[in-house]
Amino acid sequence: MSRFFSQKYSALEAYVPGEQPRDMKYIKLNTNESPFPPSKKTEEAVLAEAKKLNLYSDPESYELTSLTAELFGVGYDEILMTNGSDEILNFAFMAFCDSEHGIAFPDITYGFYPVFAALNGIPCKEIPLKDDFTVCPDDYVGIPENVVIANPNAPTGICLPLSEIERIVASDKNRVVIIDEAYVDFGAESAIGLIKKYDNLLVTGTFSKSRSLAGGRLGFGIGSEELIRDLKTVKYSTNPYNVNRMTSAAGIAAVRDNEYYMQNARTVIKNRAYTEEALRSLGFNVLESSANFVFAESPDISGEELYLSLKKKGILVRHFNKKRIENFNRITIGTLDEMKAFVRAVEEILKEKRK
Amino acid sequence: MSRFFSQKYSALEAYVPGEQPRDMKYIKLNTNESPFPPSKKTEEAVLAEAKKLNLYSDPESYELTSLTAELFGVGYDEILMTNGSDEILNFAFMAFCDSEHGIAFPDITYGFYPVFAALNGIPCKEIPLKDDFTVCPDDYVGIPENVVIANPNAPTGICLPLSEIERIVASDKNRVVIIDEAYVDFGAESAIGLIKKYDNLLVTGTFSKSRSLAGGRLGFGIGSEELIRDLKTVKYSTNPYNVNRMTSAAGIAAVRDNEYYMQNARTVIKNRAYTEEALRSLGFNVLESSANFVFAESPDISGEELYLSLKKKGILVRHFNKKRIENFNRITIGTLDEMKAFVRAVEEILKEKRK
Repeated sequence: MSRFFSQKYSALEAYVPGEQPRDMKYIKLNTNESPFPPSKKTEEAVLAEAKKLNLYSDPESYELTSLTAELFGVGYDEILMTNGSDEILNFAFMAFCDSEHGIAFPDITYGFYPVFAALNGIPCKEIPLKDDFTVCPDDYVGIPENVVIANPNAPTGICLPLSEIERIVASDKNRVVIIDEAYVDFGAESAIGLIKKYDNLLVTGTFSKSRSLAGGRLGFGIGSEELIRDLKTVKYSTNPYNVNRMTSAAGIAAVRDNEYYMQNARTVIKNRAYTEEALRSLGFNVLESSANFVFAESPDISGEELYLSLKKKGILVRHFNKKRIENFNRITIGTLDEMKAFVRAVEEILKEKRK
Repeated sequence: MSRFFSQKYSALEAYVPGEQPRDMKYIKLNTNESPFPPSKKTEEAVLAEAKKLNLYSDPESYELTSLTAELFGVGYDEILMTNGSDEILNFAFMAFCDSEHGIAFPDITYGFYPVFAALNGIPCKEIPLKDDFTVCPDDYVGIPENVVIANPNAPTGICLPLSEIERIVASDKNRVVIIDEAYVDFGAESAIGLIKKYDNLLVTGTFSKSRSLAGGRLGFGIGSEELIRDLKTVKYSTNPYNVNRMTSAAGIAAVRDNEYYMQNARTVIKNRAYTEEALRSLGFNVLESSANFVFAESPDISGEELYLSLKKKGILVRHFNKKRIENFNRITIGTLDEMKAFVRAVEEILKEKRK
């Protein structure tokens, strides 16, 4: 830390992204990326923009915003496009939370929530998941804090039914409930349909997972016009040109090619079923996933040892050194070939272990 | 404002970017873009990345960071690449300023500085430019605040000599001085060479102007390893994947094609000389510019009327409704043809006015 670093950040612990090693080629099942490249139309759209990079992007991202609003059945003023969904989450923490208005979220969830809170001086209430790693909706009813829930949750993959989400949102209309739907296309029900009914609901989403744009950085927030207006005030006070020309073009192509991406999501769901079954037949405890990953532990090998052994075999999964889940690994669902290679590697590791 | 918007932002006035109208095709001389498209290599580099957008970018932007560090003659740990230079500026305001550590800057300068300050609850000292619109270095010596100075300044275009910048930095090593060099390639001397000598100096830059990547969003900060480490803590607590794959590729190509861009900058300087001379011969007062724009006023027509008349003729320039400069317009330097069209339009407007 330099002698100039503001005191307010003296205890700030930054988020640690999943490793992106440069030493060799891995089967990457560690950062919940899609195994499918973007569609051909994306390439063409991006190339056309690459010729015009000397000109600023439209700060409103008019075309992208219109098309995405249409895709999700909301109005133009009910959505804000951002540089990844981390940006909309940070904007929401900034806009709706402060030292007086804390935020509640599960103890096991996306690791960035406590970082955003620390960054913005926001008190956190971390609410333990139940023993079976599910979110207990009642824990979020009758508390004064704003709420952020990933649905499906990460790294567990478990989702809440929409009726339970609605119950949390409806229980107190004087606080904001953020539903982070990064993984919604892999089996959960979206809460977007509720935003017209509840002006205290913000739904966030990303093009990184089902829409194959992790490397393009495109996210969004959907809520009442008033919530979105506040988020725009933060955007225009931070980074007005947050979505660049190429990302915008890639996003437009992704919306136009929606069926290609939804088909990919269905393939991921199939490959997930294969992976779950294979792991269970190897004795693993696999949580019920509605996401593009599974969260699993073995009675025969520790989470860390499995992670390290897989890495030696050229397969990356994500291990969290965190209480309650240190025996688990989060395994992103890739192509069927990748998942077969993964299962084979696990079998080998368990066999060597038993020797 | 929604009833949820944090009280701390109740008076926040967001930055207003230059207009990007969609109604017709304009000669755009209003947002300081380069009139030259990026080089062919950029297109190829971007296309290659477009095929891999399903994968996250390297959060370190290793190759881009290495090459840019080399270009500027600094170490890998002395530079941080960001999503436009607005992002590095915001990070610096966040990291080094707070309610106890205010920031000083000229009253007439980049309009985002007061916004970043307001966003982060930082007290501002706005120091008036001299009557001739130059920065008086002595005003920044012997004050306790951190300092941010755009060099060349915007929208005036006037630059400070490096010796004066050094005097400000050296005068108090217990505060941070940020030199915003967005326009440095058009005639000012960079302070990057001073960062090894002064650990309280942060130099920020952008690929938006001389390197034709306004629509790609790429900026950077250069300073001591300790300053950069703090800025990285903020980055990894905000948006770890801030530079996406396509932008990174475009930036790498821009560094490799440096000579193409420096040649373009020389062309802009020539076109600026043409524009200055033409405006002066029409009676304008034109400030001495070292940037890719000129700031000019006419005794014969108000700044606003000239702006509106030019817009009717399909030419956009930037007019600021701000005390001391309301009679001026900021005119971005485009191609020679664009500048000739601009001068012709001004001549016509003045002629009509005299009728």
